[in-house]
Amino acid sequence: MPLTPEQQAEIDKHRAETQPTRRATVPALEEILYQPVPVLDHGFVRVIDYMGDDAAVVQAARVSYGRGTKRVSEDRGLIQYLMRHRHTTPFEMAEIKFHVKLPIFVARQWIRHRTANVNEYSARYSILDKEFYIPAPEQLAAQSTVNRQGRGDLLEGKEAARVLELLRGDAERVYAHYAEMLNESEEGAARDPKRQGLARELARMNLSLNFYTQWYWKTDLFNLMNFLALRADAHAQYEIRVYADAMLGMMERWVPITAEAFHQYRVGGAHISEKGMVVVKRLLAGETVGHAGSGLSKREWTELMEILGRAS
Amino acid sequence: MPLTPEQQAEIDKHRAETQPTRRATVPALEEILYQPVPVLDHGFVRVIDYMGDDAAVVQAARVSYGRGTKRVSEDRGLIQYLMRHRHTTPFEMAEIKFHVKLPIFVARQWIRHRTANVNEYSARYSILDKEFYIPAPEQLAAQSTVNRQGRGDLLEGKEAARVLELLRGDAERVYAHYAEMLNESEEGAARDPKRQGLARELARMNLSLNFYTQWYWKTDLFNLMNFLALRADAHAQYEIRVYADAMLGMMERWVPITAEAFHQYRVGGAHISEKGMVVVKRLLAGETVGHAGSGLSKREWTELMEILGRAS
Amino acid sequence: MPLTPEQQAEIDKHRAETQPTRRATVPALEEILYQPVPVLDHGFVRVIDYMGDDAAVVQAARVSYGRGTKRVSEDRGLIQYLMRHRHTTPFEMAEIKFHVKLPIFVARQWIRHRTANVNEYSARYSILDKEFYIPAPEQLAAQSTVNRQGRGDLLEGKEAARVLELLRGDAERVYAHYAEMLNESEEGAARDPKRQGLARELARMNLSLNFYTQWYWKTDLFNLMNFLALRADAHAQYEIRVYADAMLGMMERWVPITAEAFHQYRVGGAHISEKGMVVVKRLLAGETVGHAGSGLSKREWTELMEILGRAS
Amino acid sequence: MPLTPEQQAEIDKHRAETQPTRRATVPALEEILYQPVPVLDHGFVRVIDYMGDDAAVVQAARVSYGRGTKRVSEDRGLIQYLMRHRHTTPFEMAEIKFHVKLPIFVARQWIRHRTANVNEYSARYSILDKEFYIPAPEQLAAQSTVNRQGRGDLLEGKEAARVLELLRGDAERVYAHYAEMLNESEEGAARDPKRQGLARELARMNLSLNFYTQWYWKTDLFNLMNFLALRADAHAQYEIRVYADAMLGMMERWVPITAEAFHQYRVGGAHISEKGMVVVKRLLAGETVGHAGSGLSKREWTELMEILGRAS
Repeated sequence: MPLTPEQQAEIDKHRAETQPTRRATVPALEEILYQPVPVLDHGFVRVIDYMGDDAAVVQAARVSYGRGTKRVSEDRGLIQYLMRHRHTTPFEMAEIKFHVKLPIFVARQWIRHRTANVNEYSARYSILDKEFYIPAPEQLAAQSTVNRQGRGDLLEGKEAARVLELLRGDAERVYAHYAEMLNESEEGAARDPKRQGLARELARMNLSLNFYTQWYWKTDLFNLMNFLALRADAHAQYEIRVYADAMLGMMERWVPITAEAFHQYRVGGAHISEKGMVVVKRLLAGETVGHAGSGLSKREWTELMEILGRAS
Repeated sequence: MPLTPEQQAEIDKHRAETQPTRRATVPALEEILYQPVPVLDHGFVRVIDYMGDDAAVVQAARVSYGRGTKRVSEDRGLIQYLMRHRHTTPFEMAEIKFHVKLPIFVARQWIRHRTANVNEYSARYSILDKEFYIPAPEQLAAQSTVNRQGRGDLLEGKEAARVLELLRGDAERVYAHYAEMLNESEEGAARDPKRQGLARELARMNLSLNFYTQWYWKTDLFNLMNFLALRADAHAQYEIRVYADAMLGMMERWVPITAEAFHQYRVGGAHISEKGMVVVKRLLAGETVGHAGSGLSKREWTELMEILGRAS
Repeated sequence: MPLTPEQQAEIDKHRAETQPTRRATVPALEEILYQPVPVLDHGFVRVIDYMGDDAAVVQAARVSYGRGTKRVSEDRGLIQYLMRHRHTTPFEMAEIKFHVKLPIFVARQWIRHRTANVNEYSARYSILDKEFYIPAPEQLAAQSTVNRQGRGDLLEGKEAARVLELLRGDAERVYAHYAEMLNESEEGAARDPKRQGLARELARMNLSLNFYTQWYWKTDLFNLMNFLALRADAHAQYEIRVYADAMLGMMERWVPITAEAFHQYRVGGAHISEKGMVVVKRLLAGETVGHAGSGLSKREWTELMEILGRAS
Repeated sequence: MPLTPEQQAEIDKHRAETQPTRRATVPALEEILYQPVPVLDHGFVRVIDYMGDDAAVVQAARVSYGRGTKRVSEDRGLIQYLMRHRHTTPFEMAEIKFHVKLPIFVARQWIRHRTANVNEYSARYSILDKEFYIPAPEQLAAQSTVNRQGRGDLLEGKEAARVLELLRGDAERVYAHYAEMLNESEEGAARDPKRQGLARELARMNLSLNFYTQWYWKTDLFNLMNFLALRADAHAQYEIRVYADAMLGMMERWVPITAEAFHQYRVGGAHISEKGMVVVKRLLAGETVGHAGSGLSKREWTELMEILGRAS
């Protein structure tokens, strides 16, 4: 369970209070506000604030004086048009803030998305908890033999057991030594009064990359979609994809019309290259086209046939 | 009056509705939400949405689970510490969205602040209203003779009258010709059925830079402060400063503790150069220091004496 | 001609000097360095500095110690892979700086691309030249009747003549009044010694949006491609597209392999929506599909048939 | 030594080649181009490309046609003016690219500066080398007792020895297990043919935060100064400060006039709060002021007295 009872109590208290507001409000998102969705073995993601809704996108596109909404069907049409033609600025007018607890190696991938605001828990200032990620057996994959940055078959039997034993043993040991070097008890006193204790900003370097950190992460709807398009994708590493999947569900509660257009025109669609379109047109004209005469590399040919749902 | 009765009615309707929310809410800002504050002769600025409050800054700095607030005095202390030591990221965790109506030449200064989200009313798509800025007599200043980018004495008498006549006459004429070239009646029909009408994206180029445009402008609290520090400053051009002043008042309603620290540590303080500090220390030691022995340029010396409230 | 003889002499002098460098150098771009390419009636664009080349993209993707280049064919393969899979960061490792002279209404569109560095000539500080844009007859288009933000047929005969007369007359007049209000002679003295002259920061507001301004604009290769994808596109307004077209030519000299991949995978390709792909697959399976059974809106159907080169 | 002989040979080869260029060139920076400066026990930083020089800042501020340089003394004056008045955009017109090898925990601090372009070596794609950071004895500091995020006295004797033994032992062990889990020999074959080997993207999580990574990091001069102001400061953690110090030396070679102004007006100066300035003025007026009557908190009073070089 990723939360202590004290933390859950703080959240519950927070969830119990409501105030009246004149701002755009989304009941479906309010319902889960502050509530963590568990991810991986000790992580979570939760929405802690938001600004705007689908209508805010419409309002911004029209620079209107009121709520912007004419009829839902018109708003849907406009949002789909904006998504289809890659108009980005109206989607920047809605904002969302998450609290995320995640392994450090995942945080390092995540932070590459620079168009967001981040406040991370400081291991220079505070002591990290003893919480580390150990993959579930169904995630313990071998190196892919075809893709240098992918996973292949599952490890099984002795090899799997050995890997889990190494990961767990090392994490336990580096944390024990981290605590020993710090020499601080929970109350802040010295564990061993004869030692000074290593500076927190140094001791943290002994922890491994599967330890959990946490941060507040705030972004606008446009950049959230960029993040999700990349990280909720099948090519993303599983350990970040599960966060993106949870956040996609939150986005669907928040801005359902935008989420639908996102699936329809961005994630669900396909981008076909100039030469690829030549192949498509020849096929549509009834021509038989094979890789040989396509002008495509083997890899592109395979990708195109996959997109078209044809055997390559 | 910057609004039509229809626009004011839309705003009033919008203001009349409230919903319950679990989010942080700021009653002092809710009070004026959506309500335009008039600026210049036809412009306005109004807050149309916001996310977070002073406590959000504190929460982010602590990456906390609950509302973050311990006691107001502790929050104030932390916010002052963050401002004093130029910690920026916690202030990025609160967000605000404005609707602004402003002359185009002001918009061109404003847009240089790139870390914001903008949706501007499109004169490629729509027809601009006949609204242009004419300076009030007390703003009709001569070119400064000491500062290449500042104002000097007020123009008076005939020269002032002539300037106003030129500005007004030209604005009236370019708009009349804009409308003639467009050849569209209010209902969208042709004014003169024998003419086609010039494309809107071309006709707009005939308008002068004092015509009003409008946009939605959204930014975080940190970048808002950067904007205000520059534009609510005495060196800013009057026509953008009046917008910044109005927004500073809104910021004081929204995040009073941050606004106080902003005044105390950022806007109200002074930055003194390395050589300037040498002078200050010599003065404090009782030495008599004049420009000659200061190592400062004439301009720096004058600026320093001004900061120190001494005759130069 | 967009340049004065003095400006051309400065450029020629600058072009005549070379220094040895250890940095990556692109002879084809050096050839045109500093040299303005004329755009519109008084505008231009010229490259004034650059950093990196195609190999810099490759080096960055590999984080290598040397020049990164193995063989051109390998580099081409990697760059195409990066473009196809939308890897953005290696393309951010090359940088280019332009000097652009352009009408103010074009500058206002351009500046929406925020991920660039800009220094604009200041009309608060200096006096603008008497240079304004008048469309060539073959650009004097009527408002489109099908697209609210596009152009339709050319204006002809009397209407065209009247539009040109209005544009030209108004530009001449607003500039004459601008100069009168400023009351400055070329040497900086007062034209009329009895008048003070209006502050430059105020007088500029009388100029119309077709007057020329100029700026330095610096961006990385990735963001340059974002700009060009949008602005060298057929849907962009002609007056900005001509700048983008000129810059695309410069990009082809600078990074020919990236430019080729840009055409092949980004600009030349097509993005087809999820429902659109269903239609494509049904067509490939030999089914007859019409708009009625397609699940697409009329507009999307037309767009899809256009992409596929079929009558809609 | 942070480089293999092969890497040094690549660099030497690269350094041996020069081409003629029309671009601004800085001989003092060319001299050290590509050459790594060692930092910490296995790290380095080296400049791998640059664009512009001091004159580029001047040119941009003037939007000029030629090299911008009038006389060095005028350029210096303008750059000091820009720095003093916090004009940022001209400094954005020069760009620099570094190749940095650094411990992961340092990389995690560094990456918070978002206005830069980054390409990091991928441990998802490749295998990390066995290189980890162990603090030198003179850096093995205890936790500060007065500053929650700082260092206090040096650890000595047994405690120091034990810390080093733990850090070294754990790093050796986690790497050995990383290699075992990967099951890859240097040639890419399996070390143990009976095992599949864990996916690289998973195995990396066993490494600790003191392992070295590397990246290309590119930024403009303005954002470089923001980075250096924060990270070359006495409050920065030693392990990142040594990188910033090395980069500051490179900046001094690259843009000596800007570097001088940076020291004089930004780093070397002091920012005094509104209440602090009241104290300074009272002191200058000959008044005796103590903490009691100052209106400052104890902490602010101490900081102010420090800035003024007076006993608190």
